[in-house]
Amino acid sequence: MKTIEVRTRAREQLVDISAQVRRLVSESGVKEGVIHLWALHTTCGLTVNENADPDVARDIVEKMRHLVPQAEAFYRHGEGNSDSHLKTSLFGPGLTLLIEDGDLVLGTWQGVFLAEWDGPRTRKIAAVVMAA
Amino acid sequence: MKTIEVRTRAREQLVDISAQVRRLVSESGVKEGVIHLWALHTTCGLTVNENADPDVARDIVEKMRHLVPQAEAFYRHGEGNSDSHLKTSLFGPGLTLLIEDGDLVLGTWQGVFLAEWDGPRTRKIAAVVMAA
Amino acid sequence: MKTIEVRTRAREQLVDISAQVRRLVSESGVKEGVIHLWALHTTCGLTVNENADPDVARDIVEKMRHLVPQAEAFYRHGEGNSDSHLKTSLFGPGLTLLIEDGDLVLGTWQGVFLAEWDGPRTRKIAAVVMAA
Repeated sequence: MKTIEVRTRAREQLVDISAQVRRLVSESGVKEGVIHLWALHTTCGLTVNENADPDVARDIVEKMRHLVPQAEAFYRHGEGNSDSHLKTSLFGPGLTLLIEDGDLVLGTWQGVFLAEWDGPRTRKIAAVVMAA
Repeated sequence: MKTIEVRTRAREQLVDISAQVRRLVSESGVKEGVIHLWALHTTCGLTVNENADPDVARDIVEKMRHLVPQAEAFYRHGEGNSDSHLKTSLFGPGLTLLIEDGDLVLGTWQGVFLAEWDGPRTRKIAAVVMAA
Repeated sequence: MKTIEVRTRAREQLVDISAQVRRLVSESGVKEGVIHLWALHTTCGLTVNENADPDVARDIVEKMRHLVPQAEAFYRHGEGNSDSHLKTSLFGPGLTLLIEDGDLVLGTWQGVFLAEWDGPRTRKIAAVVMAA
């Protein structure tokens, strides 16, 4: 198992971690298989989406802020981040990516993102690479 | 393949199944790898979130109830649980967890939950463990 | 790695791809293990839900349209499909399904769907099968 660290800069933010994940794949020496990623936290998730136009990530975060705002009259959890916990379950804390020819299998527009929902923080992601 | 059974007690509820999943991992004898979990249903999912303060799970369920209420004028499915089906796709019916030193790799606050969206019922989860 | 193609017919639609995925499993010859599926796009995802009553898929799509409508005053991405990108992250672009006795492990009502959020288009899904 390997881990990578990601520094986030805002309460809610998608941070492109494609380069770090690619490095894990190439260091593993695995040519064909999968990499399983896991965020070791309950207020950030992992996702894959467009990394060409930064407005895509920005719009995703903005709409999530409207759908699941930080404050709700009915929240009971004392830390004021119930919204961050829900957003994490909606995006999911894990991701399984395919590997071929020693590199990630991604579509033309796909990048790997950490979805920060309660930053800024330093986040840890664990990874296991499996050969096919 | 192994299966575990989970008894839920409410229509919508997060049930902590960490201990049952840990037992599957230890019984498998696998020291390094992953466990793939799969809920064999279309109205409950699997997720990982905080299991320290029970208000976190409670707030998640409560907000999901507001976002995706049971009744909508435009629903056509006759069983009155279209909301449960959508909540299941939003949380996802599967989960891949990492294994190291013969145990689950989880962050300090992470617990594994069955997300019941149409209970109370007895649910079945299938599992396959793969060695790295 | 194998790929399958899926033709979608509407902007937003759940398309049942269970038969195509089953074929990938049987062609692989793997009797026990998992199949990892990956949609190579940023505006469609993969999910599992009921494929008995078509109104379930219809209600899921309809509710997603209400939750995440195409137009929002605050969207900046110029292509007018920020909603499709978010829906993709909410459903997820990947899926790991269990295999036993050379076939998918699915509950009675479960079918595998491509969740189209910006069609109609021809979509490509990559797959890797791993033996347990």
